[in-house]
Amino acid sequence: MADAVRHDKTARQLRLLSDALDTGRLGPVRRLVNTLSPAEIGNLLESLPVAKRAIVWGLVDPEDDGEVLVHVGEDVRESLLAEMDEDEIVAAVEDLDIDDLALLAEDLPDTVIEEVLKSMDRENRERLEQVLSYGEDTAGRLMNPDVITVRADVTVDVVLRYLRLRGEIPEHTDHLFVVSRRHQYLGRVAIAALLTHDVSTPINELIDDEQPAIAVDTSSDEVASQFSHHDWISAPVVDGNNILLGRITIDDVVDIIREQGEHQALSAAGLDEDEDLFSPVPRAFRRRVVWLAVNLGTAFLASAVVGQFQGTIDRLVALAVLMPIVAGMGGNAGTQVLALMVRGLALGQVGASNVRPLVWKEVRVALLNGLLIGGVVGLATWAWFHDHELALVIFGAMIINLLSAALAGVLVPLTLKRLRLDPALAGGVVLTTVTDVMGFFSFLGLATLVLLR
Amino acid sequence: MADAVRHDKTARQLRLLSDALDTGRLGPVRRLVNTLSPAEIGNLLESLPVAKRAIVWGLVDPEDDGEVLVHVGEDVRESLLAEMDEDEIVAAVEDLDIDDLALLAEDLPDTVIEEVLKSMDRENRERLEQVLSYGEDTAGRLMNPDVITVRADVTVDVVLRYLRLRGEIPEHTDHLFVVSRRHQYLGRVAIAALLTHDVSTPINELIDDEQPAIAVDTSSDEVASQFSHHDWISAPVVDGNNILLGRITIDDVVDIIREQGEHQALSAAGLDEDEDLFSPVPRAFRRRVVWLAVNLGTAFLASAVVGQFQGTIDRLVALAVLMPIVAGMGGNAGTQVLALMVRGLALGQVGASNVRPLVWKEVRVALLNGLLIGGVVGLATWAWFHDHELALVIFGAMIINLLSAALAGVLVPLTLKRLRLDPALAGGVVLTTVTDVMGFFSFLGLATLVLLR
Repeated sequence: MADAVRHDKTARQLRLLSDALDTGRLGPVRRLVNTLSPAEIGNLLESLPVAKRAIVWGLVDPEDDGEVLVHVGEDVRESLLAEMDEDEIVAAVEDLDIDDLALLAEDLPDTVIEEVLKSMDRENRERLEQVLSYGEDTAGRLMNPDVITVRADVTVDVVLRYLRLRGEIPEHTDHLFVVSRRHQYLGRVAIAALLTHDVSTPINELIDDEQPAIAVDTSSDEVASQFSHHDWISAPVVDGNNILLGRITIDDVVDIIREQGEHQALSAAGLDEDEDLFSPVPRAFRRRVVWLAVNLGTAFLASAVVGQFQGTIDRLVALAVLMPIVAGMGGNAGTQVLALMVRGLALGQVGASNVRPLVWKEVRVALLNGLLIGGVVGLATWAWFHDHELALVIFGAMIINLLSAALAGVLVPLTLKRLRLDPALAGGVVLTTVTDVMGFFSFLGLATLVLLR
Repeated sequence: MADAVRHDKTARQLRLLSDALDTGRLGPVRRLVNTLSPAEIGNLLESLPVAKRAIVWGLVDPEDDGEVLVHVGEDVRESLLAEMDEDEIVAAVEDLDIDDLALLAEDLPDTVIEEVLKSMDRENRERLEQVLSYGEDTAGRLMNPDVITVRADVTVDVVLRYLRLRGEIPEHTDHLFVVSRRHQYLGRVAIAALLTHDVSTPINELIDDEQPAIAVDTSSDEVASQFSHHDWISAPVVDGNNILLGRITIDDVVDIIREQGEHQALSAAGLDEDEDLFSPVPRAFRRRVVWLAVNLGTAFLASAVVGQFQGTIDRLVALAVLMPIVAGMGGNAGTQVLALMVRGLALGQVGASNVRPLVWKEVRVALLNGLLIGGVVGLATWAWFHDHELALVIFGAMIINLLSAALAGVLVPLTLKRLRLDPALAGGVVLTTVTDVMGFFSFLGLATLVLLR
């Protein structure tokens, strides 16, 4: 009888496993690990510090090794491969599906790839080489050649007998693909239709030719959006001559969608979705420090702006106390606009045709924010420093900076996109540079005009 | 013959549509819109400013209205529902699947729900009421009662004849579910197995009873992680007595995974994944200003810390120039740790059992960052202000603040999670409060000790 799945299964597994590891008895650890699916093992390995990870990896059933490697991020994969010798790697990966092999290929040593290619039959070798010939992040890399094709002029009965003879149907096969004599893609037939129609029905009558096939050079982001727009389980991939090359299945698309989400969230902090939670300190340091160095450059820029107004600050030290508020609030407001824009760009919802209404909307929101938040800051300043000119100056600076933040929030990601830079990665740095510089400049500049006149 | 899907289809559709709308001739717009799938129409509506959105929405084939409503975010859905009268809404939603109806139910006026319930037959009405009785974001809300069940003691032949008689198989049916006489869940049989085995095979021999069913109160996040760990297309949902209630299909899970990603990215800016790109200005203002007000509170806190050191700044105005660097770099470094932690928490990869190695790793990374970045800042300060004491002070303050940032980056999200607050939403504010306060305090405090002694 089937047991119901518990809540927070991963967290529970992690706790159990950590406890078992701490006792030092590896038998129970091995038993625990090998009740899990390869993806669950992968998730667990990602949650473990490097030393424990190596121990658990050694206990995984070698039969699962290949699938586990497919299901972990790039950094963790590297750390796992480092624990294996070449023979083990070859044994682990040689039985994988073509699409999974293609995914791993970049991380495998060349000698291993050669070994694996040698161990394959000619047909599969050619298929793998074909898949590897397409660009990363394209439909060609995601596809698997394991398609079942039928001809349009046979009956359901013939197809059913063919399937029974075949004896095996690839996972996630919800449709068979109908091809011409020259293997051109004509349409698809739902497995469900085979089961519900009379066996004498010709396939011709069951073909769905509404749904176009995916071109082999389509970007993987576009593939993902097509899948979720059409609720597909599998979709055919064709070349420029409409020849059927393979199919993409929903499991790989789910991975892409997950990575897209992680990309948007992590790259705002200058990180990669492949980043290992427990990456070795030197590597983590090298990656992080690059990002910090970029941000340091912009921090010095903002600082230089403040430097121009040392004379003003010297006359009124309250300016130093208040200036972080103007810059910081601009950053917060701009980040909100930026986050919406980055999502909109990822979904293809933002383009030249709707920039103008977007800017107009955000400017109006910023004006309201500026009046209210700027008003509050002005009043607080007046209450704190009893200086109504200073209060007016900060009120004005807040409005100017929130308006700049709104404009930057819309225009920075669009400009980055046009320059073929990643708005999710670079947007935040550029935006906060704008809001810091404008924040300090407007506040200290207005102060110089008003207070030192 | 099938045409290949083009790149960036959404962006292209948006451009075409905007151009057509601008000409003012609605015929071509209507034709264009009604070649799209409901999800594509939804995506397009989300990309349009409110006035154009209303025009296009009026042109959508009423038959698609219900599905389109399912496929847009909550805010956009509200704006679309506002354009419809009650009869239109009832007509649009009454033919939807139970799970989709349950999804919409929260946004529909009560009178509409009553109308829809009245128009349903008793069985479906009871099913909808059952689904609505489960908590939001649980398996119960996601499930659809459209399951095909079979008994274990029949043969493949009987099942095949039953399916042909039934004449229709619900979408995304890759397995049939085997139940006992009391409708208890026993296991599943792959459709593929029915096609490849001899028709005289008893279902008994084809049952896969390894995979547990999903408990009806499982959280939707947990459902999503189970689906992606096991590459499921559909999965059975059972109650506490293992009675089969319905099934969840991958299309709904894909939506959850997409929302999870958007949630992590948008809530870091205090926004909701349901936020409309073109939400009306007053509404956008109300939502944004709340977030800005929270951030304003923390900004004043940081400002108050600076206020304590006015005397010190008065003696050395360079402190005012440099202090944003210390605070800002702490914020950047801490945000990196926070982003990794939020992802780890979402994936269940972080818990009490691995906090210690995580803290230890991040402290070491922070120390290296502090030595390098702090060193650079110290040298730059020395070159700029020719003051070696000031250079040493900022070097020390950078190290202190980067260490605080690392600790806060790990501990703040864990603490928020323990307090049942959302780390993705609140983490950033709390973290930057820590790094601002610690940044100003360590820099100005050290300066007071060293320079004013």
